[in-house]
Amino acid sequence: MINNNLTSSLLSNAVDELASLPGIGKKSALRFALHLLKQPTENVNRFGKSIIKMREEIRYCSQCNMISDTPICSICSDKRRDRSLICVVESIRDVISIENTGEFNGLYHVLGGIISPMDGISPSDLAIDSLVKRVSEGGPREIFLALSTTMEGETTSFYIYKKIGSYPVKVSTIARGVGFGDELEYTDEVTLGRSIMNRQPFIPTNK
Amino acid sequence: MINNNLTSSLLSNAVDELASLPGIGKKSALRFALHLLKQPTENVNRFGKSIIKMREEIRYCSQCNMISDTPICSICSDKRRDRSLICVVESIRDVISIENTGEFNGLYHVLGGIISPMDGISPSDLAIDSLVKRVSEGGPREIFLALSTTMEGETTSFYIYKKIGSYPVKVSTIARGVGFGDELEYTDEVTLGRSIMNRQPFIPTNK
Repeated sequence: MINNNLTSSLLSNAVDELASLPGIGKKSALRFALHLLKQPTENVNRFGKSIIKMREEIRYCSQCNMISDTPICSICSDKRRDRSLICVVESIRDVISIENTGEFNGLYHVLGGIISPMDGISPSDLAIDSLVKRVSEGGPREIFLALSTTMEGETTSFYIYKKIGSYPVKVSTIARGVGFGDELEYTDEVTLGRSIMNRQPFIPTNK
Repeated sequence: MINNNLTSSLLSNAVDELASLPGIGKKSALRFALHLLKQPTENVNRFGKSIIKMREEIRYCSQCNMISDTPICSICSDKRRDRSLICVVESIRDVISIENTGEFNGLYHVLGGIISPMDGISPSDLAIDSLVKRVSEGGPREIFLALSTTMEGETTSFYIYKKIGSYPVKVSTIARGVGFGDELEYTDEVTLGRSIMNRQPFIPTNK
């Protein structure tokens, strides 16, 4: 409805494109477009070109499938990182989330999705063979499966576990439990139940 | 912090640009960038180019200053509209908001801002002279001041009222119903629509 009143096809085209961004409706898209109209032409040029260039020139690390400007990404080529530990994740975004914690010093393996028959995603669509190859070459001693706790995530973890079970690697998974700062009464029963079963030694920290 | 972990300057440049959109932080910008990376290259090209093209080629109506692809916009050139009534608004966005109510059938005059000494915006920065010219040429019989109910909006309304006071035009203002301090663009369509139907004579208050 908004588009019919824009009096400019240039504006309405740009609004349509901006409204294709995830979580952005026509109203926010219009706000973005009018904001961009107020910026100097060269800035808007740089804005548009940075996105086009990113899509056209982006490369993926040939080892872990992470986004990279070079054939081997900056994480895989970092000599200070523990090459015996590989964290398996669903997506690039998960690598960024884990990197932001500052708690992980190993390498990654981005699957590019999780097994989901409902969405037509089978193991052959994911970078599982290349993970098995990395394991078979003997580099990693531990494979750390950091996948979602959904049924699809659990299925994928199990599939990978079976695939690499014959190699001498330890397979670990992300700790499940009540989140820091979460209230017990609002924690779902499965999470709380598992957190009780898997209770851990209390380590007092003197603050 | 996120940017340091992106392993790609192409991605981090695009994220920086997307984060310049109003209300968009680094996290949402990253979400947009990763979404765009998943789209076909030609779609992302179209996305970027539509924005660059909009900024480079946008034109403004020589009569009302609304965004237009033609010298005279589709509203000003629409023969079915009431040419004796001109609605004065701050911005392009206000025209779109008012058009969306479907309650207004006159023409517009976009000032391009409101008088705001704090922001260094004086009457000469706004399209007030061209409004006076339109009034002096005798076309409009009513000038409908649809400015925000902020102090700056009231000041601008009063300034315009004084400027056109010597011409035989009725000066009206948007009905109170829009809350004081509320911006037009965030007002729901029913309230804004009623406020247009019930527009009232402008009663100047000397501040």
